[in-house]
Amino acid sequence: MEQRVTLITLRVADLDRSRTFYEGLGWTPAAMGAGEACFFQLGGLGLCLLGADAYQREMAGDAGKVAPGPTMLAHNVHNKHEVDTLFSFALTQGARLVRPAEEQFWGGYSGMFADPDGHYWEIAWNPHWPLAGDGTVTIA
Amino acid sequence: MEQRVTLITLRVADLDRSRTFYEGLGWTPAAMGAGEACFFQLGGLGLCLLGADAYQREMAGDAGKVAPGPTMLAHNVHNKHEVDTLFSFALTQGARLVRPAEEQFWGGYSGMFADPDGHYWEIAWNPHWPLAGDGTVTIA
Repeated sequence: MEQRVTLITLRVADLDRSRTFYEGLGWTPAAMGAGEACFFQLGGLGLCLLGADAYQREMAGDAGKVAPGPTMLAHNVHNKHEVDTLFSFALTQGARLVRPAEEQFWGGYSGMFADPDGHYWEIAWNPHWPLAGDGTVTIA
Repeated sequence: MEQRVTLITLRVADLDRSRTFYEGLGWTPAAMGAGEACFFQLGGLGLCLLGADAYQREMAGDAGKVAPGPTMLAHNVHNKHEVDTLFSFALTQGARLVRPAEEQFWGGYSGMFADPDGHYWEIAWNPHWPLAGDGTVTIA
């Protein structure tokens, strides 16, 4: 199995609400799928917002046995100021504050918010991980 | 907020067990973090296996209010045969069968397995989404 991921899927309770939230952050959908899915192009991979019923069908009922919970994603930027700016902006768009932006034990600076379904997004500056102009990161 | 993600974090109950599982699939860690985290380089982004205690601390306790559940990720390949081959291989590595590889309503072919913590992985062939040689996908 090659060391890569193609698509990240977030289970959402209300597709319109979630789409509006991500559009509010500045994102543009690439495609809509069958009325219950909204796809975004994220560099070389995709992110899908998927309605809860469709998610359940996708798992052939398995998701009923293990309740789907929040996913944690990170979005790194180039400096602390960008963390503060973006974090404050996200809160104005309906993001829920999980922990404020502050110095981290690993040497960086980050804050955490949650989207309408509780999916976590860390906005981070990490001095140890080179971040290219196109947003690709190198894990060091 | 730029339309991208830097890091995907999967909460795991036993870091050694999960690391062994992903190494069994053919992956190699890029870095270990503070004894409770294992990082993989996935093209231009990273995937982190994070122990449950560290995950809890990361959320400043928030994850205790909303129980973390499984994440759904997809790994696309170039044809149906590759789906079958990879899917069968994953099952030999301790993956749990969620639904077998079969034709999908959206025109592709895929199966779903779960890793040791229940995180879902769809192995998929999608004729509508161009997949480059380096694994980058275009959402169509």
